[in-house]
Parts: sequence; structure tokens; C-alpha cells
Amino acid sequence: MIVNMSDSATQEQIEHIIQRIREAGFQPHVTRGTERTIVAAVGSGGRRHEIEALSVAPGVDNVVAIAQPFKLVSRQARPQPSVVTVGAGGGKTGGGVKIGGPEVVVIAGPCSVESREQLLETAQGVKRAGAAMLRGGAYKPRTSPYEFQGLGIEALKILREARELTGLPVVTEVMSTEDVDLICEYADMLQVGARNMQNFALLRRLAMIKKPILLKRGPSASVKEWLLAAEYLLSGGNDQVVLCERGIKTFETGMRNTFDLAAVALAKELSHLPVVADPSHGTGKQSLIGAVSRAAIAVGADGLIVEVHPCPERALSDGPQSLDLLQFERVMKDLSAPLRPLLIPAEAEA
Amino acid sequence: MIVNMSDSATQEQIEHIIQRIREAGFQPHVTRGTERTIVAAVGSGGRRHEIEALSVAPGVDNVVAIAQPFKLVSRQARPQPSVVTVGAGGGKTGGGVKIGGPEVVVIAGPCSVESREQLLETAQGVKRAGAAMLRGGAYKPRTSPYEFQGLGIEALKILREARELTGLPVVTEVMSTEDVDLICEYADMLQVGARNMQNFALLRRLAMIKKPILLKRGPSASVKEWLLAAEYLLSGGNDQVVLCERGIKTFETGMRNTFDLAAVALAKELSHLPVVADPSHGTGKQSLIGAVSRAAIAVGADGLIVEVHPCPERALSDGPQSLDLLQFERVMKDLSAPLRPLLIPAEAEA
Amino acid sequence: MIVNMSDSATQEQIEHIIQRIREAGFQPHVTRGTERTIVAAVGSGGRRHEIEALSVAPGVDNVVAIAQPFKLVSRQARPQPSVVTVGAGGGKTGGGVKIGGPEVVVIAGPCSVESREQLLETAQGVKRAGAAMLRGGAYKPRTSPYEFQGLGIEALKILREARELTGLPVVTEVMSTEDVDLICEYADMLQVGARNMQNFALLRRLAMIKKPILLKRGPSASVKEWLLAAEYLLSGGNDQVVLCERGIKTFETGMRNTFDLAAVALAKELSHLPVVADPSHGTGKQSLIGAVSRAAIAVGADGLIVEVHPCPERALSDGPQSLDLLQFERVMKDLSAPLRPLLIPAEAEA
Amino acid sequence: MIVNMSDSATQEQIEHIIQRIREAGFQPHVTRGTERTIVAAVGSGGRRHEIEALSVAPGVDNVVAIAQPFKLVSRQARPQPSVVTVGAGGGKTGGGVKIGGPEVVVIAGPCSVESREQLLETAQGVKRAGAAMLRGGAYKPRTSPYEFQGLGIEALKILREARELTGLPVVTEVMSTEDVDLICEYADMLQVGARNMQNFALLRRLAMIKKPILLKRGPSASVKEWLLAAEYLLSGGNDQVVLCERGIKTFETGMRNTFDLAAVALAKELSHLPVVADPSHGTGKQSLIGAVSRAAIAVGADGLIVEVHPCPERALSDGPQSLDLLQFERVMKDLSAPLRPLLIPAEAEA
Repeated sequence: MIVNMSDSATQEQIEHIIQRIREAGFQPHVTRGTERTIVAAVGSGGRRHEIEALSVAPGVDNVVAIAQPFKLVSRQARPQPSVVTVGAGGGKTGGGVKIGGPEVVVIAGPCSVESREQLLETAQGVKRAGAAMLRGGAYKPRTSPYEFQGLGIEALKILREARELTGLPVVTEVMSTEDVDLICEYADMLQVGARNMQNFALLRRLAMIKKPILLKRGPSASVKEWLLAAEYLLSGGNDQVVLCERGIKTFETGMRNTFDLAAVALAKELSHLPVVADPSHGTGKQSLIGAVSRAAIAVGADGLIVEVHPCPERALSDGPQSLDLLQFERVMKDLSAPLRPLLIPAEAEA
Repeated sequence: MIVNMSDSATQEQIEHIIQRIREAGFQPHVTRGTERTIVAAVGSGGRRHEIEALSVAPGVDNVVAIAQPFKLVSRQARPQPSVVTVGAGGGKTGGGVKIGGPEVVVIAGPCSVESREQLLETAQGVKRAGAAMLRGGAYKPRTSPYEFQGLGIEALKILREARELTGLPVVTEVMSTEDVDLICEYADMLQVGARNMQNFALLRRLAMIKKPILLKRGPSASVKEWLLAAEYLLSGGNDQVVLCERGIKTFETGMRNTFDLAAVALAKELSHLPVVADPSHGTGKQSLIGAVSRAAIAVGADGLIVEVHPCPERALSDGPQSLDLLQFERVMKDLSAPLRPLLIPAEAEA
Repeated sequence: MIVNMSDSATQEQIEHIIQRIREAGFQPHVTRGTERTIVAAVGSGGRRHEIEALSVAPGVDNVVAIAQPFKLVSRQARPQPSVVTVGAGGGKTGGGVKIGGPEVVVIAGPCSVESREQLLETAQGVKRAGAAMLRGGAYKPRTSPYEFQGLGIEALKILREARELTGLPVVTEVMSTEDVDLICEYADMLQVGARNMQNFALLRRLAMIKKPILLKRGPSASVKEWLLAAEYLLSGGNDQVVLCERGIKTFETGMRNTFDLAAVALAKELSHLPVVADPSHGTGKQSLIGAVSRAAIAVGADGLIVEVHPCPERALSDGPQSLDLLQFERVMKDLSAPLRPLLIPAEAEA
Repeated sequence: MIVNMSDSATQEQIEHIIQRIREAGFQPHVTRGTERTIVAAVGSGGRRHEIEALSVAPGVDNVVAIAQPFKLVSRQARPQPSVVTVGAGGGKTGGGVKIGGPEVVVIAGPCSVESREQLLETAQGVKRAGAAMLRGGAYKPRTSPYEFQGLGIEALKILREARELTGLPVVTEVMSTEDVDLICEYADMLQVGARNMQNFALLRRLAMIKKPILLKRGPSASVKEWLLAAEYLLSGGNDQVVLCERGIKTFETGMRNTFDLAAVALAKELSHLPVVADPSHGTGKQSLIGAVSRAAIAVGADGLIVEVHPCPERALSDGPQSLDLLQFERVMKDLSAPLRPLLIPAEAEA
């Protein structure tokens, strides 16, 4: 941490800062410039917030943090990429699905479980097309109280049946600490939705379970805040965490969100955790899903989570961004097509 | 709702939309232009999401919603402004504090309750300066797990003691459904923090209690989403709701948030609920709090919620945006100064 | 500037940075922590960009700027607020209108000059209601080439006639270096529109003239970037600059822009230049203009610039955010009403 | 256009709207719902702004535009993708470089031309690595007046020499109408920088020349606004336009901009114009350029524009986001590597 004194800071004010840095458990280190003085707080055992609060001390211009605030999720803590295994030992799923390994994992399924028929048809369809995991919402966070809120436990039972039928491990969203135990009985992976990324009570509860967590980035969360939310899980005891980029809120209204694909690369640079991408929420537009899914893999995502519905125009939620089964098949085929070639001028070295 | 057909839509595709609008419980109404056809879904009893999902039906360009999606919170539902009474019957507080009446309510206190001494000193100080309610965090939502997380129940007891001592009703944040009953025993008003604005499990639980709720706007919530979050409370049975603007996330890094004061005016135009403003989070900068507090009152806010700490540079949280007691007194005095006069040219009519 | 070395930086890499800092004209100052080393570049004569570029040197984590990059516009350069006089010596306007003095200057008029009748009626109306200056667009920056682009020189002549008639000094927008001389003949103040805030060729040209400039903040410009745009004018020789906040682009779609009133206070804290606010573009909504105009004055704005049209529903541009003359009169009256009083509990000290 | 009447609109107010729609050159078409009435303005010859302004007419709730406002740039106007040829007939460049054809065009070079040596070394290096075009700034738009502003005409001469030497067509930025003729003599393609995307005087001037234009998206421009800026060029007579996505401004500070790769796919869906992507400005981070370049190609970009400098840590501008020649070679090689394979469960259909 660096405390940047103002031009007019007095010697007494500088002394005060030096003393406060010591009280906070750091060593002070003073650099006197021609115009201003900066005081660094050096060491790793001190209390950061006490230095931050010095920004309002007399004679201080501002306080700048140097080191990243997250620890266990960082590459420094674990230089090798983590691999999270989902559904291990769960009957047909055998050894489980590995997210973060050499291959890209596609998770597919409807936004919401609407009926037994709808889910089983979708599960079989996405499996046939090559999906490795099944998604489906039982408890739905909806902007309006008048929208479909999910089938709850009935949906969980249908998800379990789909897993038995197809062998695909299941991920579903948890919205409340009170539902954690129940959902753990039925699902292989628990999703923290974007709007709950900083629901710290929920994160603390999920840190205590043994199931892997899919942690979506909040619509206004910086990559740093996202990694700090993951830090709640790791520091609480659960290191089976997969991050999920799903688009952020910006001024652009041509798509539902701005899909921040570069953030996938940045998160993987800063952290050892696997990162998957959600092209459905990322764009909100059926017609763009194929293109951005390819881009997500190209940028380094360890997986995709895609909304698929047998009949999107009849979906109870997220119809506009859902693929039907035929469209999903086509997208899956495109995912292994080679990249478009470069135009190389004749004279360049081959 | 309006379904906007593409230029190349066939008659068959238009018929399909007409039929689907009927199935969704609306009456279809077709307008044929020279280039394109639009089909309106008319009526109030239909299922909106079924029309929204038609955006992916063949021949459809897009679907546009006309009416606002919120109901009970809207001015249409209740043209007169609501008044929410906090702390009624609570001993010294007498008839309680009315938010939304003719006078502006100032709520003040520390970000976190840190100790008995800190809170009591602050409570007495802010009361002396004219605050009508006391704030103080017992359970703190913190970006990092390594930051101070609040004193919990111990803080609640100290808050109650401060209320006994000063007569000021108390508002404190609730982060989890599991804490609702406990906090209800101690506090006069429960705050839903910005990061929990769309924690729908929490909103549904708070809809069932009798205490008033202070609902902060999420850092990336539109005014419409904020009002829909309030709609969860009203539709669930609790209409004692006060909205709180506290700044949104934008590209501007010179302040902690962008304080959206115009949104206060917009929220009051769209809804009958009282709106207060939080200049501390809104700017994150001690030096700006006086100016933006005056602006908040000028724009129509029914109250302010301000962070005050006996020694901001020693605060365990939010030090950089906290006022000390002397600064708070000065800000309070400024709040009744007249607006700067206009320069009126000599020739203008007086 | 601070160069923050990574944990794994070698001694050789640190030496390299020290040498590069010297080459860039600064003195290096090394602070060795337990985990990492930081190297400060001290002094005022060096080349900042050379230090910035070190962020890609081997062993460097990042580079942090400490001092503000602007100079002449800053409070350090001139602690007293600047006053800019518009229209001095221009016949009837007498001593000119002072922006940044003890009184608030209201500038009003139509978005575009559409006809002689429209402008003269508006000019007389806004003067009657107390406006001190007249606005009106001759050259219009329009998002679409198919929208009304302004009457050009014809509009300039009408503006001059309105000034003769009313004595109100005139501000109008300049979009191109090629129009500067012509507009200088007709107008008292030249406006740089939001979309041209970083049109540096235009700024450099305007730095060479003697007329005052109204510099609008770009829709995605930080306060820092805005002040640096003003720095182009001051460093080029024109210090008659008034800043204008007119709303920024954010995710909120309920209003045309997010009116950043706190930025008015921040700009005035960082700079000595006067700041006016544009409630018309700031919100884009006629019904909110009164409330946010009051807020702009309360937060410290030195003036307002308001769009007024005799018949907004027939305006060729910006109809939805224009006031008619009656509405403008009402808004003007409200601007001197006292602020809503506080609710002070009986026991507080009076 | 749809005029949405409020619940309380009177019959007289509806009649007024019907009449105004006729006056604006459209046919009115009324739909009466149970709660509200909407009036569509049908036809293609009317004046849109007159309908937009009706949002402030009595009894009107809001006005909604249905059709896209751009024409010549749209897929409707030209369903087949356009191909723009740069440098045709220019000596060694032979038939020119085709952007928008079956192959991806890589444009590379320094942010600024700093010296003859620097540029020639870079030009030869990027050609060797497979670049098809050369970039280099002669006139630089810089946030601060104290930063390096480019070598101007001297740089143009060096660029021409590099083109002679390598045969690579050259693109360079134009900042002012006054420089257009001069730059046309030296460069094969003129770039409109992000900050000038809505410099309409410049766009109108560039619409009159015969050279192709590279139109960067503004940092806060929606895709719609970007296409409307291109519409200025096409409607003015120049249809040799290539769009360039270079990142937008959002709350995320971990990267210089938020690289909006999905917007590449959206722009190509809405328009026939070629789209290239700028990973250097898109992320501002050397270490991410390889990953996001691959993603840009995967999402459908017709080209890349990449900053390359012989020694980024000594660059006069944009050092932190520039690749050195070795890094550029490596990135180029990666661009033809296959996408990471999918994990396909054993039981899926092959």
C-alpha cells in the first residue's frame, strides 16, 4: 500500500502517517520527491483497511493498493491450473467430468425445468449432440415476481431422473442457504447465479459443502471482485470452484449483456481456477450463440454452458436466447471447424 | 406488447403469431405497413413471457414491451405518495419517524458497529446535530473474506442500547433469511444492501414481516429492476418500503460510484414509494458529501443516509467516505442554507 | 510514478528499471518489502510515458501514476475559482455575463435554430423568464445523416439578430476547425459538443481564439479526461473555459443519459474552472428537468444550460427533452424556492 | 414508429396524435386495448423526428421506434458481404489486399511512427511474420496535451518508404478535415479513430474521397450508432468502409477497455460491411493479445489490427499493449492452431 501525501503536507502530518502505518502492522518506508512525499506500507502481516482509511487523514492525497487482495485463488498460490471433477462416482457418470483438463466441457439444457417431458427430451438431445453435462433451473431468480419462479423440488427430481437416464452430471442453481442441503441430494454441481455472486451468506454456506460450485460473474462485478467471491469459497474450505463469465451490464442495448470474453483470458491469467463461458446470457440472442461459443473456446474457456429448449418460442423463461435441438447440434459441429485462414502476402516467409 | 414482423415475413408466419397471441391470453391486433407488419397483443390478462419468447419465432424481428412490468409500486396503483413510519410505539421514539412526509429524514451513523463506545458516541453526536434515525452495520457484506465482517448479535445489542439512550429508531442490514427473526427483535427497520437487491429468497422472506424495509438499489440495477425488486416486497405483503439510491457502477473511477440523483426524481415519478439517498456510498469521498447531500434534497429525496464515525481514519470499514462528528454537524447546517441565487439580467421581468 | 515489481523479479530486472527511470529524467527510489520491491520515479521534469511503458519490462507487475496529469486547469495552479466573462463589450450586453461568480447563470434556448420566428420568440421568452444567455444550434451533430443537420450560416445570422434584440450573449456549437472563424463573427461563446470533447484538432484551433469556450463532457469521458481536454485549451493559450456536465452513458435506459451531478462537485474540487450543468441532455426527459436543475445548483454548478422550444412536439431535434416557454418560467421560479426542511427530533439541540 | 398513449389519454388527445402522424407523412393506424391505445405511424416516406417529438404531446406515454434507422449499411440494402480492396494498383501491392474475403487480413505496426529505423524494422518484421498491411500513426489523438503528438508529415513520408520497401499497403489515422488531402497522397487507407467516430464534419469530408476508410467504434458507441456513423460515409458517396471494434468503456478496470467481440458478430449480422478487431486497444494488455486475437477470428472478424513495436518498453505511446516482433511472430503462428477439442462422453453419437 502506498500513501501519497499532498503537496502541502506538513512534516507533522507525515509523521502521523508513519506512526499509523506502524500501528497497522506494516513497516513505513518514506520516499521524498521534489514536490511530494510518498510513504509505502511494507510487509505482509498488516491490516490493509487501516491503511485504506488513511486516505482521509490530514495531508493525504490518496492511498493506492499495490498487491492483489485475493490469495488462495491466485496463480501465485497455485501455479498449475486446477481441474474440477463433477459427478465422480455417480453411477453411469463413472469417473466424472473434468473441467479444466485438456478438453472443453459443454454443459447444455433448458433455462428452467418446465416438465418431465421437456427435460428428458432435452437431456437426450443434448447428449446425442455431444454435451457432457446437463443444466436446468429448479429455483429461478426472476426480475419480476410475476414471472415463472421454477418448479422447485419437483424439478430436482426430474433432473435426477434425467441424470439416471443419460449419465450426464447435473448442475442447477441454488438461491438460498435454506435450499443447500436439498439441492446437494439431487445435483452434482451447484450454481451461484450472477445476482447472488456477492450473497456472502450463501457463499459462506457453500464453502462448507463437498460439491463443486459454478460461480457466475455478477453483471457489474470486476474480475477482481469475482475472484474475491471465489476466495470466500476457497478460504471457507471448498476449492472445487469453476468460474463462469456470463456477460456484464454496459450501455450497449443491442444485446442482453456485453459478453466479456477477454475477461476469461484475464481470469485464467490471474487465477488457477477453471473458467467456463455462458454464450446464452452473454449475448441473449439465439443467432449469435454459435459465433461467440467458438470465440469462447478460442480465448481459452474450459467449457461452455448453453441454453437449449425443444421449442424456444414456448419456453417459460429465456426463450429468445435458447437454441432448439437442431440448432444446438449445428453449433456443436461448428465448434470443431478450423479457424478461418490468414491472408499471407506472397513475399512473406512461409 | 408489440410483435414486429420482419420485412420478409410470410402470411403463414403472421398467422402463426396471431394464433400464439391468442393462446397467450391476449387479443391480436394487426397493423400492415407498406414494408412491414406489426401485431399488437392487446389486453391485460395474458402471459407476457409467452409473447416475449415469440422473438425467436420464424418471421419475427423483435418484440417490444409497451406497459411497465411493475404494478403495486406504481403511481397508477396509488397516485398519492406513501409515508412509511419507522419505530412507532418504540418507547422514546413516540409516534415514530415518518419517511415520505413534508420533512427530510436524516439517518446517520457508522458503516459498522465496532464497539459500544464508538456507537454510543456516534449516536449521541448525530442526534445532537439533528439526525432523526441511527444506522449501523452488524452483519457486513464485504468484497473480501479477509475484511472485517461485523460483530453480529453483539452489534445488535449495542444498537438497541443506543436507541434506548437516544430515542433514535435504528436501521441495520440483513444479509440472510436466517438472520431475519433475530434482527427484527433489535432493529426498527431492515436494510437490504445493494448487493442483495436481487436476492429474491431474502426479499420473499422480508415480504412476510411487519417491519419497514430500506431497499438499496443494486450497483447495476436499472430503475425498473429496482422497482421490480420492491414489487417482490409489496406483492408478498409488506408495503412498508423505502427505496434508497446509493450510486451505480460506471466507467468513472474518480469516485467510488456514480451517484444517480436523477434516478431519485425518476423513481418518485414512477412510484409512490419514498426514496432516500446515500451520499456516502454515492460518491465514496468525504469531501463531496455536503454538496451531494444538498443536491439530493433539491432533487426530491425524502431522506439521506450518511456514514459518520468518530474517527474516520480508524474506521474498520468505509473510512474514506465517513464524516467525523464535526464535519457532520457542518453538513447538517448547510442543508438548510438557501440555494445560490440566479443572475437575472436587468431587463428581465422581475 | 511507481513501478511495482513482481514477486519473482530478479536483481538484474530491478537494476534495469532503476536505469530506465534515470534515462527518463526521474530519480529512482527503491523500497524493498518482504515480498516485493517497488521503485518510485521521483521528480517533476521526467517523461511520464517512458515510465508507463515499463509495465511491459521483464519483472514488472504494473505501473501506478500518483500525481494528476493535468496542470494549468488544476486548483494547485490557481487556487481561486476562475470567472469567465461572456459577451463583454458587445453592445447592449454591457459588461458581459460572468460565469463562476456569486450568481448562477441560466443559458436557455432551442436545441436547433429552426426559423427566425422560432428563435426570436424563444429568445424573448427566456429573457422574460430570467435567462442570462441564449443558446441555439446552427451546426448540429446528429447521430444519423438523415436527421436535421442545422441551418448553418443562416442560423448564425438569426442568432445575432436575437442578441441585438434581447441583449443576451449567444453560445452556439462549433463542429469543425473550418467553421471557427465564421462562428467567431456571430457568437459570444463557442461550444464544443460532447462528441467532440476529444477532437484534438478542434481543441488546438480553439486554443488560439479570444472567445470563451463551453466544453461539454464526453458521454464516456472520466472527469480526468474532461479536465485534460480543457488542458489542451489552456496550454494552447485560451483560459476562458467553462466546463459543462451533460450526462454520461451507462446501462440505465430509463433516461437518455446518467446525469453525473457529483462530477460537478468533483470537477470544482480538482479545477478552478467554472462548471455548468445541462439538465436537458442530462436526463432527456422534460418532466425531470425542474428537479435536476435545482439539484445542479445545490451541488455547486455555476450555471445551467436548458433547452427551450415554443412547441417541443414540433421541434426538429430534442423535442422530448425541451421545455415550452411556460414550463421554463415555472422551472425558473422553482430555482429560488428554499430546500425542503429537515425533520429534527424534539430532543436534538436547536 | 409506435405512439403509446397513456391510460388516461382523452379521445381528443388521440385525435391530435392521429393528425400529427398524417402531417409527418405517415398513415396512422389505431389499436385500442382494454387499458390503453397505441397509434402506429405506418409508411416509409415520413419524417421520423416529428413522431419522436410526440413523446411530449399531451396524453402520450412514450414513442417506440420499430425499424432500424440505418439504410445503406444494412443487410437489407445489400445481402451479400462487401469486400473492400486496399492498395490496389499501388505498385508492388499489385491487386491490393481484400478485406472481407475468404481470408483474414492482419494489419500490424507501431502505435506511432517514431523514427525511420523504428518503422522500417517493424514493417519488415511484421511482413516476415505474415502481416498483409502496415499500420502507423502520424497524427496522434492523445488524452493529454503533454504526450507525444506524432511526427506528422515526416511520419507520412516514412510510411510511404516502408510501403515501397515491403509492398504492404498502409493505414494511418486522420484527425482533421484539413489533413485529408495530404494523408490521401501517402496512405492507402484512412483510419477514423474511436474518439472521432462521431466527428461528423470529418465523416462528411471522408465521404467525398476515393480511399477506403477504417472506422473505429467509439468507446461509448452502441453498434447502432457505429453503423449510423458508417451511414454518413456511404450516404455521402464512399462505400469503401471497414468497421473496427476496439473495445468499449465499462466499469471494468482490469483491462484498458472491454473488448466487445460479440459486437463483431452483431455488426456482421446487421450490416454487409467487413469488420476487423483491434486486440491491442481492446484489452490494453500485451499478455492477452494472443488469446483475444484467436477469439476475434473465431467470432467472425475479417481482420485484426495489432500494435507491434521493436521495443515496447521504449515506445512513445501504447507501450503496455504493444507486442515485440518475436511475440508477434508467436501470435501469428497461434492464429492457425486448431481449436481445443470438446470432451465428448462415450455414449454420445459420434
